Amino acid sequence: MEKSLALFTDLYEVTMAQAYFKTGNVKATFELFVRRLPPNRGYLVAAGLEDVCNYLLNFRFEKDDLEFLEEKGFEKDFLKFLSRIRFTGDMWALPEGELVFQNEPIIRVTAPIIEAQFLETFMINTVNFQTLIATKAARIVGAAKGRQVVDFGSRRAHGVDAGIKAARASYIGGCVGTSNVLAGKKYGIPVYGTMAHSYVEAFPSEKEAFKAWLKTWGTDTVLLVDTYDTLRGVRNAIEAVEELTGKKELKGIRMDSGDMLSLSKEARRILDEAGFNSTKIFVSSGLDEYVIEDYLNKGAQIDVFGVGSSLVTSDDAPKTDMVYKLVESEENGMLVPRMKIAEGEKATLPGAKQVYRVEENGRYVRDMVGLCDENLEGEGKLVQIFKNGRLVYRLPKLEEIREKARMELEKLPEEYKRIRSPEAYPVQVSERIMDLGRQLVKRLLSVKQG
Amino acid sequence: MEKSLALFTDLYEVTMAQAYFKTGNVKATFELFVRRLPPNRGYLVAAGLEDVCNYLLNFRFEKDDLEFLEEKGFEKDFLKFLSRIRFTGDMWALPEGELVFQNEPIIRVTAPIIEAQFLETFMINTVNFQTLIATKAARIVGAAKGRQVVDFGSRRAHGVDAGIKAARASYIGGCVGTSNVLAGKKYGIPVYGTMAHSYVEAFPSEKEAFKAWLKTWGTDTVLLVDTYDTLRGVRNAIEAVEELTGKKELKGIRMDSGDMLSLSKEARRILDEAGFNSTKIFVSSGLDEYVIEDYLNKGAQIDVFGVGSSLVTSDDAPKTDMVYKLVESEENGMLVPRMKIAEGEKATLPGAKQVYRVEENGRYVRDMVGLCDENLEGEGKLVQIFKNGRLVYRLPKLEEIREKARMELEKLPEEYKRIRSPEAYPVQVSERIMDLGRQLVKRLLSVKQG
Repeated sequence: MEKSLALFTDLYEVTMAQAYFKTGNVKATFELFVRRLPPNRGYLVAAGLEDVCNYLLNFRFEKDDLEFLEEKGFEKDFLKFLSRIRFTGDMWALPEGELVFQNEPIIRVTAPIIEAQFLETFMINTVNFQTLIATKAARIVGAAKGRQVVDFGSRRAHGVDAGIKAARASYIGGCVGTSNVLAGKKYGIPVYGTMAHSYVEAFPSEKEAFKAWLKTWGTDTVLLVDTYDTLRGVRNAIEAVEELTGKKELKGIRMDSGDMLSLSKEARRILDEAGFNSTKIFVSSGLDEYVIEDYLNKGAQIDVFGVGSSLVTSDDAPKTDMVYKLVESEENGMLVPRMKIAEGEKATLPGAKQVYRVEENGRYVRDMVGLCDENLEGEGKLVQIFKNGRLVYRLPKLEEIREKARMELEKLPEEYKRIRSPEAYPVQVSERIMDLGRQLVKRLLSVKQG
Repeated sequence: MEKSLALFTDLYEVTMAQAYFKTGNVKATFELFVRRLPPNRGYLVAAGLEDVCNYLLNFRFEKDDLEFLEEKGFEKDFLKFLSRIRFTGDMWALPEGELVFQNEPIIRVTAPIIEAQFLETFMINTVNFQTLIATKAARIVGAAKGRQVVDFGSRRAHGVDAGIKAARASYIGGCVGTSNVLAGKKYGIPVYGTMAHSYVEAFPSEKEAFKAWLKTWGTDTVLLVDTYDTLRGVRNAIEAVEELTGKKELKGIRMDSGDMLSLSKEARRILDEAGFNSTKIFVSSGLDEYVIEDYLNKGAQIDVFGVGSSLVTSDDAPKTDMVYKLVESEENGMLVPRMKIAEGEKATLPGAKQVYRVEENGRYVRDMVGLCDENLEGEGKLVQIFKNGRLVYRLPKLEEIREKARMELEKLPEEYKRIRSPEAYPVQVSERIMDLGRQLVKRLLSVKQG
């Protein structure tokens, strides 16, 4: 059994739980969604559900968790209740690899309110981050127009967990692999990598370093050519291979500094003239979707992009406004719609919802957010994951998720996939939800604040 | 014993290790540093060393790690070597809470090159992230000018590990606590938090929700007043307290939406008029150092800031260019200076270095980066952490680290602490290093590429 992460929660979830413990652990429904897509995003690629499922399956408080909460002043009868708590509710969710737009529920949980509320911190943490990175990967892979993209970001991810999860999310978003060995082991993702500059520097000359390397690894390898002077490095790589093997075979060269646009063109010319036509040019350092688009527009001769910091931090949009909000709760034995109506953009839509996606001629044209029990046009995208605390969903293999993301992105028209100022994909809200909202606003402002 | 994270590494570290295993596991020195400070940063607050020490103490490859590497094609004699590898080297580092500037070594490792090289991915991952967040926290705390700042960011941190580590780094940077319960348990950081909007919504009216809460928690609590209409929420909070207790006592109210500037002023007026003069105003949502500075310049009446997403992602600078570079390696039994001289900013300074910080009248005035054996003016900031694989450093308590950061920041003149366009703190490089660099460039370009 994995360790429970129940205590990875904001304190207010626990203080609210104790208050609900006294006033009534009524049934409630919460929904996870983003209010707006981050800047320059026309879509999001959902990711993180597998970890959420594992979290729910292992959800419990350990003895030392409860001791800590007792130190913090929580009451004994409440802690006794917590010692037995497990997730007993229902969960519906958008599978990993599906597309998400603004105001669409990604996960919907119905459970006794103490359980449902407790999930908030972990669930946002996990889905927010993994969705950001799967999305960033999809953007970068899109900009690379068929060339390969590898996750090189472990060192700049926000911690160890982030490095591993970013490798998985990047793979979902279309990367061909990762440099991270632990992620490769854990998820079966292809791992990539050869040498650093320090390897070359540790030898008396660059060519000696290359020869030592080729003796160990053969020519199905990638030589790093920019430790001293990139184009002389390319020639040294060619000479090292020829002198050692007499053949014109080398998997690739990698450049990690300098003006990649002109250097890649020169390197291609040098390789081709020497008969190394099948040798690929790998580039890393400072890449993101904007730089890659620009390089390719200008005719850069690059076959494989190693993308690091900007991929694993989603650096142009390192956060979303993802929230987990109450949409109904029990009153006199019935689930009644709820909403938050505070000023500005933070108002929420009431009621338990489903997302209906409408396809025409193999292309997505619009989504409708409706109530669960509405019969609307399009495919209902949320599927049941947990029923009465039991996992009723087969967690797909990582390869299936990656293929799902690829196919879904193919169905999304280009105007929503532009990496700069994409069009806003149409997400409509059903008349029944709008009516419900108007009724509630009226009732809340007159009664609730009285 | 904690689990080893040796496999949290980029594949190239392992491929290089196998190559060094064959060509010679010579001694080498690597240094961790940032080339440039991120945008708007005039300093960094070092953090992450404790995790690096634990990583080194537990550094080993498990049986299943080695099996995975065998599947990936690594050779049996190399894997047998890896099965016994431990960290046996020396490490010098800047203690947590110290200030760092561009091109200054934060950590220096001297060890057999296979060991020293392996640390790269984990070390950058850990120090980069925690330093970014400690720095962001220091900026935000500085902007709050004596008012309290609490880390509310767990849900938007990049994964679980990031949430916990961000809470610790934020505390080092000057936050008074965190909302994250697990971080509170693990590190003894004060935990903060009361209620969410869902709690208020789950009751028939706001005042009923407040009363139910006060019955459980008493008046030493913070009521969230913006679920429906903020200023009516403030009045409901006052009435709920008065009706239940007959007193004018409440620890605080919290606002999480709307125009905080005008709402905080109005809320203060309402509270004071009702005799709740000691009730504090907590504000959360959308805060960072820029917003806080602006609010306070305009006279906002805010006592405590809860800062989330922007703190734990360092959203205006979610990455640094931190690297770990070879600076010397063994040749004929001697450690010889090494450097990378590739085009542009990626060149490195050769030789094993120390940072000398010069203080005048209790203020830092400049740093000098010199060789370890130079006798330069100022305090040598790197201290020895490991000697022949043994931890020879007493890891300070978190409170000590936090106090260290506070005192160091106090010594740094204001012009380097501005949150926008700070002056560049003077970091000079010793003549001996510059000479060494010139000699090496000459030698490398003539010989190495031959």
